[in-house]
Amino acid sequence: MLKILEFGKSVRPLVDDFLFKLLEGKPKKLYDAASHLPKAGGKRLRPILLLAITKGVGGDWKKAIPAAAAIELLHNFTLVHDDIMDEDEFRRGVPTVHKLWGEDMAILAGDLLFAKVFEAASKLIDYGVDHEKVVKIVDILSWASITVAEGQVLDIEFESREEVSEEEYIEMITKKTGALFKASAEIGAIIGGAPNECVIKLGEYGLNLGIAFQIRDDILGLTADEKTLGKPVYSDIREGKKTILVIHALKKLSPEEKATLLNILGKTEDINELKKAADLIIKSKALEYAEKLAEKYVKIALEKLEEACIQDREVYDMLKELALYVIKREE
Amino acid sequence: MLKILEFGKSVRPLVDDFLFKLLEGKPKKLYDAASHLPKAGGKRLRPILLLAITKGVGGDWKKAIPAAAAIELLHNFTLVHDDIMDEDEFRRGVPTVHKLWGEDMAILAGDLLFAKVFEAASKLIDYGVDHEKVVKIVDILSWASITVAEGQVLDIEFESREEVSEEEYIEMITKKTGALFKASAEIGAIIGGAPNECVIKLGEYGLNLGIAFQIRDDILGLTADEKTLGKPVYSDIREGKKTILVIHALKKLSPEEKATLLNILGKTEDINELKKAADLIIKSKALEYAEKLAEKYVKIALEKLEEACIQDREVYDMLKELALYVIKREE
Repeated sequence: MLKILEFGKSVRPLVDDFLFKLLEGKPKKLYDAASHLPKAGGKRLRPILLLAITKGVGGDWKKAIPAAAAIELLHNFTLVHDDIMDEDEFRRGVPTVHKLWGEDMAILAGDLLFAKVFEAASKLIDYGVDHEKVVKIVDILSWASITVAEGQVLDIEFESREEVSEEEYIEMITKKTGALFKASAEIGAIIGGAPNECVIKLGEYGLNLGIAFQIRDDILGLTADEKTLGKPVYSDIREGKKTILVIHALKKLSPEEKATLLNILGKTEDINELKKAADLIIKSKALEYAEKLAEKYVKIALEKLEEACIQDREVYDMLKELALYVIKREE
Repeated sequence: MLKILEFGKSVRPLVDDFLFKLLEGKPKKLYDAASHLPKAGGKRLRPILLLAITKGVGGDWKKAIPAAAAIELLHNFTLVHDDIMDEDEFRRGVPTVHKLWGEDMAILAGDLLFAKVFEAASKLIDYGVDHEKVVKIVDILSWASITVAEGQVLDIEFESREEVSEEEYIEMITKKTGALFKASAEIGAIIGGAPNECVIKLGEYGLNLGIAFQIRDDILGLTADEKTLGKPVYSDIREGKKTILVIHALKKLSPEEKATLLNILGKTEDINELKKAADLIIKSKALEYAEKLAEKYVKIALEKLEEACIQDREVYDMLKELALYVIKREE
């Protein structure tokens, strides 16, 4: 087992304890709906990244637990609201919040998770983090929330556009996925007491890691099976998402094939049609292209990591492992 | 003109400037949708309350502008999401966000407003508020957001219930409306440097003011005309809201009349039917009852105000005016 995943396994119960306690309350229905997704699982990669970095810069990672929970709450809030918009019915192998409780309750459950992000952050005081750092962390968390919302708008907007450039795609995933990884890394570094230049470097490590993570996510959306994925295969194609795979395929396929692909994207639920689109994407060598692109971002992440101030050799190796893991993972 | 409204008129441009600058960004569509409701108007009662209290306890109210904007952002965020759930088509005399941009964008616009609450709060540092106070304010803002979400769930849940007690109603509006007035008062007091006991008293003043405000809102929902209200009359009846008027009517009417009322509440859009329900409510003397109830809460608010530490006589009078205004207002 990878050292980073072992570390993750050891810190997870503490993060989850904090998280689940924060999600106890009344009306029961609201708190059940809000805790549904966090309790359904998830890899907890962002909290693990955050805590590893606190440790890596020489800090006490236990002090950072409320921040790790805050980041996971923020992530889950965005998933609950995104699932409403994307009309996704499954996530982490269970029905989505809006499928179980309806859209109104899913909006409110997301709002509650979002509010809890900042309750968690203000609890850092009780864990011995000073007020100045907490304000900085609140600022980063609000920046990340804003950025993720901007990214989600681009993601939706791209669905209805035929042409989306790779540059636009990278901007979108930088906002939608990169920002939260960046925030996790920066917050971990701040709590650990890293100097400002190092916080910035680690933020860049996190950002590029997040971009690579999202590219891998696009790949898995096409190649993984439903059970591993926790949601139906071909969701991206059914929803007309402009993944890097689709963008590459639309560029490389013949005009005829391109027209066929565009006629399926976001326009049908027929499994045979979706399969046909997937075959066209594969034919365009989009998978190979995306893998290379993900590697490019991991390489940048590793460069930033090297320039940062991770003194703990063991953690340095773990963060390296993590960067390689995000592009090799099968789930 | 009331002194409190004059004060409001003088501070409003500063709050709005701060607020509107915070709502500039890209993608344009998202920021247009998010700034739609704040730009459509509103009374800015919560920011005015907050700033008056900062002044009243001897502080510099200009330091509190980001907090005043934060409270208004929080209020607008809840309105945008509530309007989706209630399927309201008008607010402040203009179409609601989801009517203009669709539900997905309205969810995201609300999320953006919510995130901006905490961006605004962290900007208090630039206005000379110390880090310890800012963390306390973040904690209050997250508490208020959580409480408002809980209140909204109760509000929705009550729609499908025939029997809702006055006690349950008061709990619901305490959460849904009182919490934000309480938070406004507390935050104003904290920034102004009030001692803790005084912060608590002013919070109780705000809470009771908010309860009275909501009862008046229920009354106006039945008695005000569409133009003054900025939304269609009888919305509450159409949506089956368990307002204090409905709760009182259901208690006082004959079994037959009660059945008629229950058959209309939340069940029809026919204007004649809605009018019939309104007449039954009026017949039950619910308006008189609600006015008395609102006065009761204003009385409590005024008692708390007297026990608090408002040294500025002019502001003391303004806060008294405000308490009387919320139950006399016609819009």
